[in-house]
Amino acid sequence: MSISSSSPALPRTLIRNLPQFEGQRVRLLGTLHTRRNLGGLQFLVLRDRSGTVQAVEQHLDLPSPESSLELWGTVVRAPKGGLEIQVEGLNTLSSAQTTPLEIPKLALVHQATALDWRGLTVRGLRERAILKILAAVLRGFRAALDAEDFTEISTPKLVSAGAEGGANLFALDYFGQAAYLAQSPQLYKQMMLGAFERVYEVGPVFRAEPHATSRHLNEYLSLDAELAYISSEEDVMELETRVLGRIVQEVSGCAAELDLLEAKLPEVPAQIPRITVADALELLRREYGYTQAGPDPDHEAERLLGEHFARAGSEWVFLTRFPASARPFYTYPEGEETRGFDLLFRGTEITSGGQRIHDYEQLRAATERSGLEASLQDYTEIFRYGMPPHGGFAIGAERLTALLLGLGNIRLARAFPRDCHRLTP
Amino acid sequence: MSISSSSPALPRTLIRNLPQFEGQRVRLLGTLHTRRNLGGLQFLVLRDRSGTVQAVEQHLDLPSPESSLELWGTVVRAPKGGLEIQVEGLNTLSSAQTTPLEIPKLALVHQATALDWRGLTVRGLRERAILKILAAVLRGFRAALDAEDFTEISTPKLVSAGAEGGANLFALDYFGQAAYLAQSPQLYKQMMLGAFERVYEVGPVFRAEPHATSRHLNEYLSLDAELAYISSEEDVMELETRVLGRIVQEVSGCAAELDLLEAKLPEVPAQIPRITVADALELLRREYGYTQAGPDPDHEAERLLGEHFARAGSEWVFLTRFPASARPFYTYPEGEETRGFDLLFRGTEITSGGQRIHDYEQLRAATERSGLEASLQDYTEIFRYGMPPHGGFAIGAERLTALLLGLGNIRLARAFPRDCHRLTP
Repeated sequence: MSISSSSPALPRTLIRNLPQFEGQRVRLLGTLHTRRNLGGLQFLVLRDRSGTVQAVEQHLDLPSPESSLELWGTVVRAPKGGLEIQVEGLNTLSSAQTTPLEIPKLALVHQATALDWRGLTVRGLRERAILKILAAVLRGFRAALDAEDFTEISTPKLVSAGAEGGANLFALDYFGQAAYLAQSPQLYKQMMLGAFERVYEVGPVFRAEPHATSRHLNEYLSLDAELAYISSEEDVMELETRVLGRIVQEVSGCAAELDLLEAKLPEVPAQIPRITVADALELLRREYGYTQAGPDPDHEAERLLGEHFARAGSEWVFLTRFPASARPFYTYPEGEETRGFDLLFRGTEITSGGQRIHDYEQLRAATERSGLEASLQDYTEIFRYGMPPHGGFAIGAERLTALLLGLGNIRLARAFPRDCHRLTP
Repeated sequence: MSISSSSPALPRTLIRNLPQFEGQRVRLLGTLHTRRNLGGLQFLVLRDRSGTVQAVEQHLDLPSPESSLELWGTVVRAPKGGLEIQVEGLNTLSSAQTTPLEIPKLALVHQATALDWRGLTVRGLRERAILKILAAVLRGFRAALDAEDFTEISTPKLVSAGAEGGANLFALDYFGQAAYLAQSPQLYKQMMLGAFERVYEVGPVFRAEPHATSRHLNEYLSLDAELAYISSEEDVMELETRVLGRIVQEVSGCAAELDLLEAKLPEVPAQIPRITVADALELLRREYGYTQAGPDPDHEAERLLGEHFARAGSEWVFLTRFPASARPFYTYPEGEETRGFDLLFRGTEITSGGQRIHDYEQLRAATERSGLEASLQDYTEIFRYGMPPHGGFAIGAERLTALLLGLGNIRLARAFPRDCHRLTP
């Protein structure tokens, strides 16, 4: 049998839909994932956006892996089970040179090297599955808030001052003025409550922090929500619990990706446990003999608390009533403490949130104490003109994704990660 | 009757839901939009995220407009028709000082002043309605592409080189390296096709163009899509037509906002007319006596073409086969012309798109000619390893929104616009 290069007039079939075509002729488009010659037969694996399939023929003259192919043939049951394609013909749409890394064997490649070649290694089955899950996280976040009548907003990334002061800001020249990249949409999302009551944003934030850890990125996607007419931070925690439930539900729809990544999704309980920071630190001292210096639970404290609550049945725990010294100026005070909270998931902080100050005089006093008064005037001024009680939260999308999937490194949850040593590709 | 300050144990009712509660007691939360005293009666208009309603009582002691209120009373038919609230009591949740501008009368305020006070003026009914429509544009864009199996991506905004060269880039220091703000996700979205075949992104882009016109922003939201396995730019134009249809459908769901803005939505024909740039310039010469210097239709040419095709029944027209001199290096050549296109809507360009070069050698030659070769190596290199034929497009979200609503100025379609004179609020 000779191989044809004249493709049949068939619509394209996606690999995931092949079970509907057993015994029939199909036309596929995709990338040559692997090829090998076995006992005179050519075996290839074709990869498209929906999956992979093996294809077989005797006389194939195959280009290098990663070439783009159009391929047609009959869907048959493979000797070892599953479906394969008995190839009748193929065209090379774009032929690849020999790749510096084998896409099917990225598990063997050093992570830094894989990131250097990210434009290519993003094609890996695991690599792309992770980014599919990230997209599902974003979809779930938006769906939850759309259903609760939130308005999506887009706040400026070019700003004249930072929400948390001048530290950790990237600076640039903006037509002769000093500008910065927004480290958070915090101040803008609060201002927009006067118009919309309930707002959210999915957008990049920028942190000029000079560390390169497995938990931090210098540019990441922040999932921000803010809502008015709350009674306390309790309303914010309840909202976040619903949002997380919806995110996990959306991610659970990515069955093939979760399978491939061997990920086990968490339950989101109707009521996530809460513990005050003071009680948490006391618990750690008493039950784990762990003491720390600062008022803000450190990484090890978070890890221990995560384990403690996981044993009690929840992979999530809200740390509430943060001390004022560990919170930004806009946090609503509650005696010596605040109505600020963190959410730990699997022993790592994924959220800061809380009720915010809405009273103008109180906010002005807080900005004065913070030393940021002058640069915050556009923001503070709005509170002169009536601002309802409100609060909100922010989730780091890549960090949540990395923890959901049990990835050791947050960089894998971002297409082209930026750390203090990495600005390319 | 004396006014109560102890609120009844009723759930909150949104103003848009009041018709379901005629004759019943309700509890409302919102902002004091206006107040006046007429013949001994106090009239107020309350505004919440869903609408406005008039409320009446004799003995009200009202705070300043823009104060946040909790208000309760009975829903009655107003003497002049419609529903109003017979107030039984209210609480001031947050009291406003006298505002520098009257929110119900922003039409009388100079636009620059309104933008200086944007954190406050965004509360205006028209102002917030525009941003609601922008949110619907984003929803429609995503819904159209989700339905066609596209993957949402998030590409870096901190980059080492620009997609269109060094001009018009904001520069910054990134831990000792020269970095720029991405003027487009172009190169990254192309690279990701090897993994996903079909990608989209909704994200900010940054243009350091020193103009301050009614059509340009220095930071705006770009709606980017890119898809593989196309036959020509025709597939891209067909995709964009479906996407625009879905966007207009989503926007048409915002009936109250469209009413308020007196906006008339366009039809999106199943087949948007196409004309080549050469034919368009010839048409303008012949029928309108209009000639221009450059190869790229200028603003006046766009306006005339918009009118011409509107008379023939379409508010949209694709300008195809742009000359290579008017297109970026990655555009797929077609003789002396290219497979690049623009889309005009109501006489203004809202999209650039086209088929891209996918062949490595061809791309390398194009980058060499462009003089950008060195800075594009991370990108070009990926094409060595097989890249299917592909193309895509980008729509400026704020520009589309402004044109859909007939706004004279694109700044009104962005929450906190940035132009070369405006970095605050």
